[in-house]
Amino acid sequence: MKKKITIGLLQMRCDRDPKTNLDNAIKRITRAADAGARLICLPELFLSPYFCQGRNKKHFALAETIPGPTTTVLGRLARDTKTTIIASLFEKSKSGKYYNSTAAIGPDGKILGTYRKLHLPSLPPGLYDEDFYFTRGNLGLPVWQTPEVTIAAPICYDQWFPEVARAVAVAGAQIIFYPTAIGWPQTDRGSLQRTEHQAWQTIQQSHAIANTVFVAAVNRVGREGQLRFWGTSFVSDPYGQIIAKVSSKKEENIIVTCDLSLINSMRRDWAFLDERQITCSL
Amino acid sequence: MKKKITIGLLQMRCDRDPKTNLDNAIKRITRAADAGARLICLPELFLSPYFCQGRNKKHFALAETIPGPTTTVLGRLARDTKTTIIASLFEKSKSGKYYNSTAAIGPDGKILGTYRKLHLPSLPPGLYDEDFYFTRGNLGLPVWQTPEVTIAAPICYDQWFPEVARAVAVAGAQIIFYPTAIGWPQTDRGSLQRTEHQAWQTIQQSHAIANTVFVAAVNRVGREGQLRFWGTSFVSDPYGQIIAKVSSKKEENIIVTCDLSLINSMRRDWAFLDERQITCSL
Repeated sequence: MKKKITIGLLQMRCDRDPKTNLDNAIKRITRAADAGARLICLPELFLSPYFCQGRNKKHFALAETIPGPTTTVLGRLARDTKTTIIASLFEKSKSGKYYNSTAAIGPDGKILGTYRKLHLPSLPPGLYDEDFYFTRGNLGLPVWQTPEVTIAAPICYDQWFPEVARAVAVAGAQIIFYPTAIGWPQTDRGSLQRTEHQAWQTIQQSHAIANTVFVAAVNRVGREGQLRFWGTSFVSDPYGQIIAKVSSKKEENIIVTCDLSLINSMRRDWAFLDERQITCSL
Repeated sequence: MKKKITIGLLQMRCDRDPKTNLDNAIKRITRAADAGARLICLPELFLSPYFCQGRNKKHFALAETIPGPTTTVLGRLARDTKTTIIASLFEKSKSGKYYNSTAAIGPDGKILGTYRKLHLPSLPPGLYDEDFYFTRGNLGLPVWQTPEVTIAAPICYDQWFPEVARAVAVAGAQIIFYPTAIGWPQTDRGSLQRTEHQAWQTIQQSHAIANTVFVAAVNRVGREGQLRFWGTSFVSDPYGQIIAKVSSKKEENIIVTCDLSLINSMRRDWAFLDERQITCSL
């Protein structure tokens, strides 16, 4: 196991045009790789606006297969840049079901694995209507072995459920990525906005602590419909300390090095994974 | 269900003499009740120094039965003050086993229920040797219905395990009390001490968020052997916001009112308990 790994999180503003978003992602993945990132994660459903504000059948046209056109392009890029790329995609399965998925693509250009989102928000109505678009995931909670580190990439709403982080940590994940699209409804008052945002950060720090892993949350930014996405992508170390964080306002890359030896040294003192007495199952 | 309930947390410095500690507790329970607290919680093993620093058979003499002498005294006090009292005790069972337990005593003076600690720390050796003294709890994770609110009282090391908070919240707990004895080893450097302390607070805030409940942590203070107990008892609301907190230095009572209606209003928007897809079991 490598001792240190540099990761890149691409906080994005998402355009109406998927091609514009893909071009933007390619440009910024290349830049992150040049800056030393070996593992690069995109925000949730980065190819389009967050279409789950409302229920509209036309958006099903955005879905694609995995493997499919986007993983082909990103696979070539992963090989060229020698990186692992984690992409969140609107997936249409062979049997015609729709999922909110992450695909991890290794530096050989091949798909390491796919995860289909388990927790699909439906609240508040008109803002996060994911239950209209997606079927509940049926691939469990996989972890993927990259050349450097074992990872998992649950998605957005999954980040509120401690069982998800626990499951992937027990399965060996050392870094948990959360591609995310979360923001403030226009109607929420300022003090509530701060509280919601702080809770979002706190609960993900707690997953790092409870499981002695790194946690990396990658959000989008910008106003879309009734939501102002709050950005503030961040990385927490296994102590729950924020080791990198960007603003709530603009597109930014996080490039940060995770010292994986911290996981083992912490687990000698904080033996939570060994000493837990309650087990969880899907 | 009452909408609001005032709770009292007694942050204590623990003397060598159990009678001194019991007298101190009685005095301070009375004061907390006079100040309006209807539910009062003592720190972990408040009757003695934290004897689990090292392995010494003589400490088994501290154990008592439940019901027993202390619950009899506290039962009378609960009736007199019309409060519910949560006491953490070194329990010797009828069959001669030893447990780290909480007993909840209702305002009628009767024992509402007992919990026996599930997660027993053994690390670092010489500081938290609980596995030497206690048998793993065999009473599951009970919740207790008081006249005002449903509560649970897991103990100290249990607070690091999200599954514990989840289990009692699913069973109906609205306030989770954690009687605690946690401190800094003399050997830890200052920056690590701050990190450890912050992690302790963060993970308990996250239990409040993940389960939309109130969380109340009651610690001891003072130097004992190799540990300086860090006090800073606090209460978090279901958003993870700290609504009351005391110092790291001295004995203090927290008297704070919890607005239980916040739980229901939050659960309409943050439907984590309804929407979780992974279940846990002992």
